[in-house]
Amino acid sequence: MPSFRFVHPIEVRYADLDPQRHVNNVAVFAYLETTRAEYLQHLGLWDGSDFDSIGIILAEASCRYLAPIAYGQRIEVAMAVTRIGGKSLTLDYAVRDVPSGADLATARTILVAYDYRMGTSIAVPDAWRKAIEDFEGGKTG
Amino acid sequence: MPSFRFVHPIEVRYADLDPQRHVNNVAVFAYLETTRAEYLQHLGLWDGSDFDSIGIILAEASCRYLAPIAYGQRIEVAMAVTRIGGKSLTLDYAVRDVPSGADLATARTILVAYDYRMGTSIAVPDAWRKAIEDFEGGKTG
Amino acid sequence: MPSFRFVHPIEVRYADLDPQRHVNNVAVFAYLETTRAEYLQHLGLWDGSDFDSIGIILAEASCRYLAPIAYGQRIEVAMAVTRIGGKSLTLDYAVRDVPSGADLATARTILVAYDYRMGTSIAVPDAWRKAIEDFEGGKTG
Amino acid sequence: MPSFRFVHPIEVRYADLDPQRHVNNVAVFAYLETTRAEYLQHLGLWDGSDFDSIGIILAEASCRYLAPIAYGQRIEVAMAVTRIGGKSLTLDYAVRDVPSGADLATARTILVAYDYRMGTSIAVPDAWRKAIEDFEGGKTG
Repeated sequence: MPSFRFVHPIEVRYADLDPQRHVNNVAVFAYLETTRAEYLQHLGLWDGSDFDSIGIILAEASCRYLAPIAYGQRIEVAMAVTRIGGKSLTLDYAVRDVPSGADLATARTILVAYDYRMGTSIAVPDAWRKAIEDFEGGKTG
Repeated sequence: MPSFRFVHPIEVRYADLDPQRHVNNVAVFAYLETTRAEYLQHLGLWDGSDFDSIGIILAEASCRYLAPIAYGQRIEVAMAVTRIGGKSLTLDYAVRDVPSGADLATARTILVAYDYRMGTSIAVPDAWRKAIEDFEGGKTG
Repeated sequence: MPSFRFVHPIEVRYADLDPQRHVNNVAVFAYLETTRAEYLQHLGLWDGSDFDSIGIILAEASCRYLAPIAYGQRIEVAMAVTRIGGKSLTLDYAVRDVPSGADLATARTILVAYDYRMGTSIAVPDAWRKAIEDFEGGKTG
Repeated sequence: MPSFRFVHPIEVRYADLDPQRHVNNVAVFAYLETTRAEYLQHLGLWDGSDFDSIGIILAEASCRYLAPIAYGQRIEVAMAVTRIGGKSLTLDYAVRDVPSGADLATARTILVAYDYRMGTSIAVPDAWRKAIEDFEGGKTG
């Protein structure tokens, strides 16, 4: 389990719920996505507005659902980049109950560095590597 | 335009965006829905967990889109109950840019008092009428 | 009530459902949106792939919910352009149960002709007016 | 790669798209979910209406995104139950382009047999095991 230096609060929306009266599994992936977009902005890797310069494309996503998430529950997503490869980044997540800190879900995504204008994968830029290692404390070897 | 005593912040999610690179029109209705569910809880009319006791059903919804909403824009939904009928409530909304206070969308929904266990519309309960009038300052005649 | 010459089937998805165990009100606007995008393609007004040339922007949307929509229910959206103004189009919709033909919801949207590259509203192009009037039988005066 | 005996067509909705102008990664999980709900109904394991008797809860979901999915692209989800454990089912999926048969995404979910009224996991019922093995041709060992 990584230590997480980035945490983003999420508000459960009524439309996230399903007939089982908790958050639908699909919505959790929207929580992860918004968290990683915030992370990129927090590290200055994306300006939040030029979608052709976002620089990554999702290759894999997985989630383990540990406990149901209720409407009104205060939750957050903790995230860390846990590995930087030649062309890819591994991101680990924990969706947590804020009051207790308990994990409600854990997740991982693999992102590939991508040039949307060229339509091709690229090497992870050095500036990304440096910014992420600086933020994560060099633990992404 | 009503004066609004209830305001709820909304975080735009990446998944709310569409190929025009602003918030999709559909997502705005999810913002309204979450705001009115929060309002009901704020006034003590719903406990936030028993979905069969939520007491209202949506009859009509409408929205005027005044300006595009961007990813990362700080927005909020202001809401007021502006009319209480025998069986229905009229809710008015403004989706606003927080820094400027500018309206990005205005909306209205008509809700009918509803008993989900019986599957039938009912008169607006006196307790609802009183709680709403107390909150709104008796302007819902 | 307009007569409808364009009808598009919709599959209710599990994720469209909410704790009341029917289709959430928000999802219905996604049904309308997909139907009007299909209509534009059917009339040759949009190629389905160049999102900056889609030519319209949504100004208003409204829906009356007449009956709950269930998972597994066979539904369709009927749609017609019912008015062409100088800069705007009025679209009327009926969300219908296929076996019975009963209306489950009726809706209207106002679309404004829009040049996404210029970021400005424009007059409804003559080619649009002609294609729509040809399709609708000249009833959009 | 399993052979798939169950295939469900999916219509890409406009609201599934994101600023990269293809289907957002989150929407793919909604495609999987609807497909497995259809599978349960196809095998007579769920009636499609009693959500407290759906009999399974999602424990894990993962997806590999192999190619972008475009608006208007004809796609389908192929699905098979590939393993039946004491309390769990493993489902494999392929999201495919219909004309070419090419995989656009592959996915797996782990479902746990669950009694929603009791709020507890249960052994996979014998009736489920038999129905699934009959359908899948006994390949779920």
